[in-house]
Amino acid sequence: MTAPSDALSRRLSFLAELEKLKSVTRQSRLVDGSRNENSAEHSWHLAMFAMVLAPHAPGVDVGRVIELLLVHDIVEIDAGDVPYHLAGKDLAKIAEAENAAAARLYGLLPGAEGQRLRALWDEFEAAETPEARFAKGLDRLQPVLLNLMTDGGTWDDFAVTEEQVMARCGPPIEGASPDLWAAATDLIRAHFAARRADA
Amino acid sequence: MTAPSDALSRRLSFLAELEKLKSVTRQSRLVDGSRNENSAEHSWHLAMFAMVLAPHAPGVDVGRVIELLLVHDIVEIDAGDVPYHLAGKDLAKIAEAENAAAARLYGLLPGAEGQRLRALWDEFEAAETPEARFAKGLDRLQPVLLNLMTDGGTWDDFAVTEEQVMARCGPPIEGASPDLWAAATDLIRAHFAARRADA
Repeated sequence: MTAPSDALSRRLSFLAELEKLKSVTRQSRLVDGSRNENSAEHSWHLAMFAMVLAPHAPGVDVGRVIELLLVHDIVEIDAGDVPYHLAGKDLAKIAEAENAAAARLYGLLPGAEGQRLRALWDEFEAAETPEARFAKGLDRLQPVLLNLMTDGGTWDDFAVTEEQVMARCGPPIEGASPDLWAAATDLIRAHFAARRADA
Repeated sequence: MTAPSDALSRRLSFLAELEKLKSVTRQSRLVDGSRNENSAEHSWHLAMFAMVLAPHAPGVDVGRVIELLLVHDIVEIDAGDVPYHLAGKDLAKIAEAENAAAARLYGLLPGAEGQRLRALWDEFEAAETPEARFAKGLDRLQPVLLNLMTDGGTWDDFAVTEEQVMARCGPPIEGASPDLWAAATDLIRAHFAARRADA
């Protein structure tokens, strides 16, 4: 393919490359059990979480939260998805792979535009702004909701206990929104209580 | 699942229902040929088109374009995807099914919030605001790009000619952005010219 202007050509090349995020599979299964979720549809779902749960994050710029969530997994095109509950992860190696991915992928765009999107990803990763904290919290909340809807999901796959769920998901979700975490806590407690009752 | 406040419970129910858009399949194949695209990942891809191609729509509120694109296919959860190049479509029946879908799905949310999202979908469908026209144009441009990347794609499936592509995709894409349509025209002409040269 050729295109008339160099800037437009680079934008279209980047958008064509994004196609590959539809083939990056995550650990979460779809609720209907038919297959695993991919990172592109996960990103859409999270952007909808931001639109719909905005009332639980007063003062947060929801438009920027949506942008953070749209780009937050793009590095996985090169670096792959790292399961959240996987033990023994080499965090330095993962960060190195994701940084190299960000340099290549955002480098496809015209300079300032690539830098703007890269800055959004850096902001998400740093989780220091209210927008990034809300985005990170939603990224933890969505798999919790999927696991509850599939009666265990990846918690069963990785033998994750109630205490581990509370310890790993609590801080990011509560940091995003105390009332979202209060609701999630009730749902998580009820799920594991029902499990114990069945055992 | 139960949740503490009625409003939060309704928001979570709506987000859980959105899960189903990941299982609505479109006619377009992924570029790697592995399967058909679904409407959730398509919606993410389009939101990225809006972020990246914003320089081609000066004066347009890109944040609202992104919101329009995130919600534009949600009615397909009930009404299904209607192939763009399918002949003999019953447009009144499709509109009826999509309106019923919008009433049910957006009705899951608390009143004013459901009405706000429903209004975004109505705005997209009406294609009268600059934001909706840009969103509609991107929704036409993305399948064109996928078809070019797969050397024909749905154009071959539906025996669509160069003249039909130009007639069907030209007005919405040119209405969104003349320079995007100029670029797309070059790419479409080159694709069909190469086809003729191979024949």
